[in-house]
Amino acid sequence: MFIRLGYDIRFEIPSPVAMVALLNVHPVRQADLRKPDRLRVDPAIDVETYEDSFGNVCSRFLAPAGMLRLSNSTLIEDSGLPDPVESGAEQLAVERLPWNVLQFLLSSRYCQVDQLVNTAGELFGATEPGWPRVQAICDWVHKNVTFGYNFARSTKTALDVYTERNGVCRDFQHLAITFCRAMNVPARYVAGYLGDIGVPAMPTPMDFSAWFEVYLRDKWWAVDARFNQPRIGRVPIAIGRDATDTAITTSFGKAELKMFSVVTDEVQE
Amino acid sequence: MFIRLGYDIRFEIPSPVAMVALLNVHPVRQADLRKPDRLRVDPAIDVETYEDSFGNVCSRFLAPAGMLRLSNSTLIEDSGLPDPVESGAEQLAVERLPWNVLQFLLSSRYCQVDQLVNTAGELFGATEPGWPRVQAICDWVHKNVTFGYNFARSTKTALDVYTERNGVCRDFQHLAITFCRAMNVPARYVAGYLGDIGVPAMPTPMDFSAWFEVYLRDKWWAVDARFNQPRIGRVPIAIGRDATDTAITTSFGKAELKMFSVVTDEVQE
Amino acid sequence: MFIRLGYDIRFEIPSPVAMVALLNVHPVRQADLRKPDRLRVDPAIDVETYEDSFGNVCSRFLAPAGMLRLSNSTLIEDSGLPDPVESGAEQLAVERLPWNVLQFLLSSRYCQVDQLVNTAGELFGATEPGWPRVQAICDWVHKNVTFGYNFARSTKTALDVYTERNGVCRDFQHLAITFCRAMNVPARYVAGYLGDIGVPAMPTPMDFSAWFEVYLRDKWWAVDARFNQPRIGRVPIAIGRDATDTAITTSFGKAELKMFSVVTDEVQE
Amino acid sequence: MFIRLGYDIRFEIPSPVAMVALLNVHPVRQADLRKPDRLRVDPAIDVETYEDSFGNVCSRFLAPAGMLRLSNSTLIEDSGLPDPVESGAEQLAVERLPWNVLQFLLSSRYCQVDQLVNTAGELFGATEPGWPRVQAICDWVHKNVTFGYNFARSTKTALDVYTERNGVCRDFQHLAITFCRAMNVPARYVAGYLGDIGVPAMPTPMDFSAWFEVYLRDKWWAVDARFNQPRIGRVPIAIGRDATDTAITTSFGKAELKMFSVVTDEVQE
Repeated sequence: MFIRLGYDIRFEIPSPVAMVALLNVHPVRQADLRKPDRLRVDPAIDVETYEDSFGNVCSRFLAPAGMLRLSNSTLIEDSGLPDPVESGAEQLAVERLPWNVLQFLLSSRYCQVDQLVNTAGELFGATEPGWPRVQAICDWVHKNVTFGYNFARSTKTALDVYTERNGVCRDFQHLAITFCRAMNVPARYVAGYLGDIGVPAMPTPMDFSAWFEVYLRDKWWAVDARFNQPRIGRVPIAIGRDATDTAITTSFGKAELKMFSVVTDEVQE
Repeated sequence: MFIRLGYDIRFEIPSPVAMVALLNVHPVRQADLRKPDRLRVDPAIDVETYEDSFGNVCSRFLAPAGMLRLSNSTLIEDSGLPDPVESGAEQLAVERLPWNVLQFLLSSRYCQVDQLVNTAGELFGATEPGWPRVQAICDWVHKNVTFGYNFARSTKTALDVYTERNGVCRDFQHLAITFCRAMNVPARYVAGYLGDIGVPAMPTPMDFSAWFEVYLRDKWWAVDARFNQPRIGRVPIAIGRDATDTAITTSFGKAELKMFSVVTDEVQE
Repeated sequence: MFIRLGYDIRFEIPSPVAMVALLNVHPVRQADLRKPDRLRVDPAIDVETYEDSFGNVCSRFLAPAGMLRLSNSTLIEDSGLPDPVESGAEQLAVERLPWNVLQFLLSSRYCQVDQLVNTAGELFGATEPGWPRVQAICDWVHKNVTFGYNFARSTKTALDVYTERNGVCRDFQHLAITFCRAMNVPARYVAGYLGDIGVPAMPTPMDFSAWFEVYLRDKWWAVDARFNQPRIGRVPIAIGRDATDTAITTSFGKAELKMFSVVTDEVQE
Repeated sequence: MFIRLGYDIRFEIPSPVAMVALLNVHPVRQADLRKPDRLRVDPAIDVETYEDSFGNVCSRFLAPAGMLRLSNSTLIEDSGLPDPVESGAEQLAVERLPWNVLQFLLSSRYCQVDQLVNTAGELFGATEPGWPRVQAICDWVHKNVTFGYNFARSTKTALDVYTERNGVCRDFQHLAITFCRAMNVPARYVAGYLGDIGVPAMPTPMDFSAWFEVYLRDKWWAVDARFNQPRIGRVPIAIGRDATDTAITTSFGKAELKMFSVVTDEVQE
């Protein structure tokens, strides 16, 4: 299966401002690209590219005053298979986890493990460790949190989601990630492309999506407390502790978003 | 100048628990060690050592039930000079910062830049960028926050410190770090040894200390909103975004601290 | 001047639920009513009416399952004068305030005086006490908080408004009330009718409004950090410590709002 | 049984400050007093006394600069019986509650019902309404919250207690009150005298205590999530929504507590 990926994002910049964009397919999937995955910046300015400590491809530039356009159109090959489900995938004891996985057990800006560790124990302490426990966490979050775009705000944390019981996809994942970490399951946040492939089309405009990954047995597995079902065609862009590390764009000063569109379509090619 | 460094930390472990200890001198100062800096673990158990993404030396082990003792005694050579003060050190524009410094502009568990960015602008927007701005931030925090051990709690964030106006050394640094990041000055948290060298002895038992570093001109500079004066003999152990990344010990289950002593003394040798 | 007042509010009630409605003109203005101010409840059910400790007229009933409609249409005579401005109105020392005013110096659900008392002192400590200080508070809130319906949420406190810098009318008032109390100016929340009389019509549907009152010299004065200008035709419905005490309807179980319209029009009669 | 009640509280006042003291036995128990219950203020100054909207006896005065002493010694007759336990006391439907009880179902500064209503439902929704549900709430709080004087802080809310799982007596009651209100059981905070009568003496100095009352069947019943057992000799001083309304002293400016002692002893007389 082939998936066309792309975006067209426009900002109005009142005065020159430094920006960092995470708008390339994550290296874990770059081998599947069938066209160049090139972030196009208009106007043409110097862009520095580097990989951050999570392996994300980052682009940094000084956006000049005026309109700024970030766009891209590429093509990726995909197995067409839904997220693997492995109900026997076991939870490793902390002392057996690879060391670079341990950071995904700690608290972060939006995932205050320390404040929800008791709640997690009360809700999930009786579940079977490993995959079933992760599934129980996703089930609980999916059932108890109401989705709505009007519930989004940039400061919203997992604890806020727990008390307010509503949010957008990132909020669902933040709460589920926090519960997983509290139960000693490494969990990391993923921002990326996720189209309506194999599921009814959403009535809302296409957007980037967020899901998360848990480390079980010997690798990371994609799970999703928002949709709570295996999905086809997830393409990660940015991986990190939470939405702080994986913001599609971070501007270090004022930048007003004026237009935003994302493409994630299955194509016959 | 030589400084004797060491500690004796004891936990009671009710049942086997994984722990990560950051209890070695940070690699930036390992060349100055004059004796081996060896974390001794009693009882003798397998300890895995690795460097995390911040370069900290980490030790991971499965602590058995019973008493656990972590101890060390080493010696380091030090310039004996106080923290350098460079009032002309300029603040780099974000687009000119080394890429691996950028993560220290973002929010983290205890440093919610997003929630204090306006306050920072109101308090410090009129100060001269670079060193004078950092100094203004340290002055403000030092003057407006009251020190007290009874004000400590593990969940306390920079916003809490801002509203409660009290805390221990880590709280002073978290608030100052947050203000620096909000003003686009990279700031990172440091936990380490800091004895009463060149200053009157503190009446309280010796402890590890926390300070922070800001990136100005072309390097990191040590500053300290708690003491707010150049000090002699800081020896970093752990560097990170905030206290989450730099905890001396993190236990992934129950471990009760029973004894804690730290040594940081100038010695004639 | 005459003002037509009224509303039509409809809920869908999944199963019988107790409700309290504050939907009558506050007794302080009942002498000005020129038509009966009668809350009509459909279907016709028993309604108990009482005045709470703030003097608000409250209606309590058990809403049956199905559609519930609360409606009213009345007429009030108004001076047609804008809110009085008395720049010489002085702030009374706390020991000279009437005792029943003292409760409006304390913290409440949405107005955490304790958490913003230092900020208030830093922002407003140099202003002249009394009316000018209240005006400075309204000016600051009006200038620094951005209005938007999408910024509303039921849990939002004055501290949230201070950090997020956005909100709806109730949020503006909560932050200003908190600052006033912190400066020892009694301040209380008012929910009521406020039409577009003497000002350009708002493009949004008419709604109830919120403002607040401060106690200066010998009485309560209406002020408004949202609009920050004297307005014509405020008609209070409910007065209290904050939005908790003055909710137009409180349901003690599920009730889904399906329709909401408010009338506040100047009429020639 | 007779109980001697009294206190000796001393402040250092840097400059004249208004204070309100709630330091008399609540009117509900004044008929049991066997000696005058007279708040003595040194130096002798004008004191105004009034009852607030909760019926508490309040004393207001302008404390002059210097030392301020508030003291009292009185005697009360008590039944000597422990708090009544009535496991059949039923929970009234909200529409049947006396109207002046309804305010104790709402959120307040330290009791954010809105933020814990779902948690309360999850924890206690399956318990039997009325007394057994209140008991289940007290049991849960008593079991899951750790007592410690070092866990106290003036800004600590029920949500903080829920996440931090520690506190002093007021924190236990705030969390339990919040859960009760969330389950539609009216609950109010009580500050008062509670000696070690009929129980082993506490090793800590005597202090005022806090408990709470729930409205079941046709009256208020004393319960206590801190001690979680019927106790002898509770004497209420102040009743209110939470600790905000019932502070023993509120100073509207600086006042430093220098000495504090409370007497609550059974006496043979």
